[in-house]
Amino acid sequence: MAGASDNKVFRATTTAPVNIAVIKYWGKRDPSLNLPTNSSLSVTLSQKSLRTLTTASAAATYPAADELILNGKPQEIQSSKRTLACLANLRAHRQAVEDADSSLPKLSALPLRIVSENNFPTAAGLASSAAGFAALVRAVADLYELPQSPRELSRIARQGSGSACRSLMGGYVAWRAGELADGSDSLAEEVAPASHWPEMRALVLVVSADKKDVPSTEGMQTTVATSNLFETRAKTVVPERMAAIETAIQSRDFPAFAEITMRDSNGFHATCLDSWPPIFYMNDVSRAAVRLVHDINRVVGQTVCAYTFDAGPNAVIYYLEKDTELVAGTIKAILGASAEGWDGPFNEPLKNVSAGVALDKLDSRAVEGIKDGVSRVILTGVGEGPISVDEHLVSETGDIISQ
Amino acid sequence: MAGASDNKVFRATTTAPVNIAVIKYWGKRDPSLNLPTNSSLSVTLSQKSLRTLTTASAAATYPAADELILNGKPQEIQSSKRTLACLANLRAHRQAVEDADSSLPKLSALPLRIVSENNFPTAAGLASSAAGFAALVRAVADLYELPQSPRELSRIARQGSGSACRSLMGGYVAWRAGELADGSDSLAEEVAPASHWPEMRALVLVVSADKKDVPSTEGMQTTVATSNLFETRAKTVVPERMAAIETAIQSRDFPAFAEITMRDSNGFHATCLDSWPPIFYMNDVSRAAVRLVHDINRVVGQTVCAYTFDAGPNAVIYYLEKDTELVAGTIKAILGASAEGWDGPFNEPLKNVSAGVALDKLDSRAVEGIKDGVSRVILTGVGEGPISVDEHLVSETGDIISQ
Repeated sequence: MAGASDNKVFRATTTAPVNIAVIKYWGKRDPSLNLPTNSSLSVTLSQKSLRTLTTASAAATYPAADELILNGKPQEIQSSKRTLACLANLRAHRQAVEDADSSLPKLSALPLRIVSENNFPTAAGLASSAAGFAALVRAVADLYELPQSPRELSRIARQGSGSACRSLMGGYVAWRAGELADGSDSLAEEVAPASHWPEMRALVLVVSADKKDVPSTEGMQTTVATSNLFETRAKTVVPERMAAIETAIQSRDFPAFAEITMRDSNGFHATCLDSWPPIFYMNDVSRAAVRLVHDINRVVGQTVCAYTFDAGPNAVIYYLEKDTELVAGTIKAILGASAEGWDGPFNEPLKNVSAGVALDKLDSRAVEGIKDGVSRVILTGVGEGPISVDEHLVSETGDIISQ
Repeated sequence: MAGASDNKVFRATTTAPVNIAVIKYWGKRDPSLNLPTNSSLSVTLSQKSLRTLTTASAAATYPAADELILNGKPQEIQSSKRTLACLANLRAHRQAVEDADSSLPKLSALPLRIVSENNFPTAAGLASSAAGFAALVRAVADLYELPQSPRELSRIARQGSGSACRSLMGGYVAWRAGELADGSDSLAEEVAPASHWPEMRALVLVVSADKKDVPSTEGMQTTVATSNLFETRAKTVVPERMAAIETAIQSRDFPAFAEITMRDSNGFHATCLDSWPPIFYMNDVSRAAVRLVHDINRVVGQTVCAYTFDAGPNAVIYYLEKDTELVAGTIKAILGASAEGWDGPFNEPLKNVSAGVALDKLDSRAVEGIKDGVSRVILTGVGEGPISVDEHLVSETGDIISQ
């Protein structure tokens, strides 16, 4: 009964990027569908630095239950409603494709084996779920040869992890909150491609990989339910900022982009502090980074860098390539040889750079705080969306290949 | 021409207390009159622990310009608009008294010599301006034998330092923001005397006497001008909290008092963080105190303590006398012999106390943070308003007496 084609392993592999929001997603209006209380906007970071690599494969010879292996560890896929929701959606789309063309292999009926690996430094404390779900959705969509656009696929990825929808595109990406109860209008869309403003750089100061005080999903529920200030943020402040930062991106106005980015990060953490019980993600080292950024801008006499903090103490500092010496050069001089991570694809302009700002002109508390509290950096910049690759994590015979 | 009475030195001396707000004053609707954007409420702290002692004196033999000596240092009184405003107001009231009774000495025409001393630990980092201006106004009003009530005098003290108006009364004191442009309805009033709820204790954890990042006056202007969340706080959140905490005080409901206190402190610091540039007063040690208080309440199974933070990193922890062992006893066990300040008038119930909560049940980061970051405490409780005393800082002949 078993022919040669019954043994065939169908495969597709993609990489997907991390994104760092400049207008923050915090708060769900529908927790099960991951529908947000407000729109958000992020910069997709280059996959030369950070990426998830995912192979989706399907074969009749696989065990009946879908499998998911992350960084070498099999996952309890049946207990992850979010993963199940993504896979069910993708299968339904494949089913529609198969229904329309009966000559196509019936992949929707085959068990899946999905293998995924991150290249993030273990100690980076970076949220990997966005890149992870984006890669999963993109890889399975490629395996299934789905006709859906990234925008349409973002609806599926959103259900895996809200911010994952923004990792399906490169450059500058907005996630429109939408208004419909079923979430069908809650989608990501490209505001501008990376090529529109390719000079954007991001320097991640890795502050701590300590376990978070409060996981994001729980934290945002607490904020929505208890913060007296949150509604003002979601209903009034963020919509104004979304419009303003899109204008700043379109006109490549870094000072405007930077101020909105910093203010939105501060406002987001303010609503965390205003929650009950209060939620703290930033610590004294984070605050030293805030001080340092304001101080570099003060000394330079214009806004050349901007900080933003997700639900953790790491600082992400945006700046433009032309200001590498002033920003990254100054921070490299502060950290000296004590911090790892300066090598890598964006290292070139830093090789022989000196501090663009004399350290003795800067607030000594900020300088000392950074020096003592940051042991690793990630130097990167704006980048592309998911990329199809031939470097599979599953062999032609269905075996898992470890990288 | 000079008779015996021309050499007479008129004197009056008072002590005045510190107050710590549980609903915070932050934001001026009129900076020169010190009119606040929102009402506030504080607990007056016992003068057995902390007080300003001030002697106001008047004599024809003094130099023509009024003098003010604080902690042994002559002040530039002519450059302090706030002090001048207070003295002008008080003189006008004295003038009215003299106009009504021509037999009274014409004190309003005499130069003043005001001498003031704080007993605060130098390293405490406690705002002394509230006690200072309250003592100044009370002492001069006593010298002038003014008929005005503390409530009426609070209008004058408010012009010296906003929160000073609350230090003219004991117990639980509201400062009503008022609505009139001239500030005549922006007054303090007693919500309940100390005797209504005398069991209230306050433990100050002195975190740092570093100079503040941003002075309060400047900080609140920045917040009002730039925070997108501030208006919601001032117009909506605080009025609701004022009503709720007054009810809690009237019914001696500590858990309600505690939750409102903590949430208001968090909300105030949230608007600081939301300011541009952002303002940070709390640090990692402050956050350890927040964690510790939540953790003690969690282990005890009810709310027995509450934190509040002014414009600085010090924690003030409120609790009731009956919970001394659970709260102060536990914190004393954490700090061990390394912190000063456990002696003093409120020390008695702590002399032989053990930790009310086993330290190994508490979040170790909170315990370590407190242990490493707190080197001094002030153990005190709710107390009375200004008290007239005979211990003058100016001799009968007008000389300054140092304490």
